[in-house]
Amino acid sequence: MIPVPDPTDPRLDDLRDLNSSDRRPDLPGGKGLVIAEGNLVVPRLAASRFPVRCVAGFAHRLAELEDAAAADPAVAAGLDGVPRYEVTRETLARVAGFDMHRGLVAAADRVAEPTATEVLDGLAAEHPDNRVIAVLEGVGDHENIGALFRNVAGLGVGAVLLGAGCADPLYRRVVRVSMGHVLRVPFAHLPGKPTTWQRGLADLQDRGYRVVAMTPNTGNTLADAVRGADKVAIMVGAEGPGLTEHAMRAADVRAKIPMAPGTDSLNVATSAAIGFYAAQY
Amino acid sequence: MIPVPDPTDPRLDDLRDLNSSDRRPDLPGGKGLVIAEGNLVVPRLAASRFPVRCVAGFAHRLAELEDAAAADPAVAAGLDGVPRYEVTRETLARVAGFDMHRGLVAAADRVAEPTATEVLDGLAAEHPDNRVIAVLEGVGDHENIGALFRNVAGLGVGAVLLGAGCADPLYRRVVRVSMGHVLRVPFAHLPGKPTTWQRGLADLQDRGYRVVAMTPNTGNTLADAVRGADKVAIMVGAEGPGLTEHAMRAADVRAKIPMAPGTDSLNVATSAAIGFYAAQY
Repeated sequence: MIPVPDPTDPRLDDLRDLNSSDRRPDLPGGKGLVIAEGNLVVPRLAASRFPVRCVAGFAHRLAELEDAAAADPAVAAGLDGVPRYEVTRETLARVAGFDMHRGLVAAADRVAEPTATEVLDGLAAEHPDNRVIAVLEGVGDHENIGALFRNVAGLGVGAVLLGAGCADPLYRRVVRVSMGHVLRVPFAHLPGKPTTWQRGLADLQDRGYRVVAMTPNTGNTLADAVRGADKVAIMVGAEGPGLTEHAMRAADVRAKIPMAPGTDSLNVATSAAIGFYAAQY
Repeated sequence: MIPVPDPTDPRLDDLRDLNSSDRRPDLPGGKGLVIAEGNLVVPRLAASRFPVRCVAGFAHRLAELEDAAAADPAVAAGLDGVPRYEVTRETLARVAGFDMHRGLVAAADRVAEPTATEVLDGLAAEHPDNRVIAVLEGVGDHENIGALFRNVAGLGVGAVLLGAGCADPLYRRVVRVSMGHVLRVPFAHLPGKPTTWQRGLADLQDRGYRVVAMTPNTGNTLADAVRGADKVAIMVGAEGPGLTEHAMRAADVRAKIPMAPGTDSLNVATSAAIGFYAAQY
C-alpha cells in the first residue's frame, strides 16, 4: 500500500473525473480504461482477462482486497505487481469527481475483443452443455446493458453477441450495474450493419442454435418458440422500438411474452431474463 | 390553462421541492401526495382512484394531456374541474427543485387503502380467471418496488400484498419507475409483524393460492414449485437478505431459480418477473 495524499498526483490519473468520463483516448484502443468499483467488483476485475493497471482505496478496503486475493489465486494473479494506492475519502472524491463511498476503485486496460466465432468456439469447447446465448441489437442504455449481463451471468447464459447500436459494454456504469459480470461473460460484436444480420446469425444457426426474436408483435408465445429446441439464441432489441425488421427476418422464430392489455412492454433486461429462463426450464 | 409565471405562487405548493421530498404532512393522511410525472403517467393518474388536485406543465404538454383526455373518458373524468397551470421550464424547475424536462406533473390526494381481504374479494369478483398475485416482504428500495409493479402489470398479476418492511409504494420514484402502474394495480398491506406471516397468508391459502417463497436456498426449482397449481402467490423478499424464515415457513413451498455457480442472486423485480411468468406459462 502506497499512501497518496495529493489528489493531483499523476499516479492517480487513470481514476480522474470518472463521473463525466472514464475515457483515455491517449491509451491503446482509444476507448479508455475499464473501471471497477467496490469490493465485490474489483476482485472480479482482477480475476478477469483485463490487465489491472492500478488500485486505489481506503485502507480498510485495500485490506479487504488482500483478503480476497488470499482466498482466490485468480484474484491474486491479477493483482500481482499492481500498485495499491491508499487514499482518503477526500482525496478519492477530488480525483474521481464524486464521493466514492464504496472506497475502492481499479483501472485496467482493454484487451482485443474476440470475434463471435472465437467466442462460440470457446463456449462449445469449454461448456459443451451450455444451451443459451444472448444476441442484442440497439440496446443503447448503459443500465440496461449492465442489467442484461447480470441476468446473463445469473441464468447461466454462455455468451453475448452484440449487434449494431449497442452501448459500450465496458463503460463504467455497465461494469457496475452488471456487478462485474460483464468482465467474465464472453462477448463479441457481430460485424456488419443492421441490414446484414443474416450473415451474423448464419453461423449461429449452423451451430444448431434456434434464433428466437423477442417481440410483442407476434402471435407466437415464448413457450411455443423455445419448445423442443436444443440450443437457443435469445435476441432482444432496444426498449421502445424493439428489434428491427432486419433482425426479426434473420431469426428463426419470433416470440412474445404474453402481456396484460393496456401495459407497455417489459424492460429489455427483464424480457431477456424471462427468455433465458424459458429456454432452459 | 392558467398561466402561472411566478415560482413562488402558492397554487404550485403541491409540486414544491419534489427532489428532496414530496411529503405534505399537513394534508389528510400525513404521508404526502401522489405525484405523477410525464405524459405517459399523468393520464394514468387521472384514470386512477386517486383524486387529482392540480396539473402543471409546459403548454404543449398540457395540450397533449387534453388529447389524452379526449381519447379516454376515464382520463377526462379524472381531470374534470382540475386546474391546469401553464408554466415555463424555468418556473417548473424553480418549483420542483430540478429541471423537469418531461414538462408535465400532477399531484393527487392519497385515498384510504383497501384491506387485503377487499383486494382479494375484488380480484375474485372482477377477474375470476386471474391466477397470480405477488406478496412482498422487506422490499425497501423504491426502484425495486417500482420495477416490481411494472412487471406485475405487464405480466397480468392481479394484485400485490405488501408485508412488513416495504417502501411506500406511492412514493414519487415508485410511481415513475412503475410507469404509473402502481396507480392501477390493486395493492394492500398485510397487517401484523414479520412473525405473524401465517395469519396474513392463511386467507390466501383458503382461497386456493399456493404460496411460493422465492429463495436461492432450497433444492426445489421454480418449475417444480408451480407445476399443477391453479392459483399462485409469488412471494419475494429484500435483495440481499431475501425472505425471512418466518415468511418462508408460512409459505406452502420454497422455490429457486437455478443460478449459475459464482453468481449473485438476480434483482428482486427480475426474480419476481420470472416467477410470474413461470406460474402462468
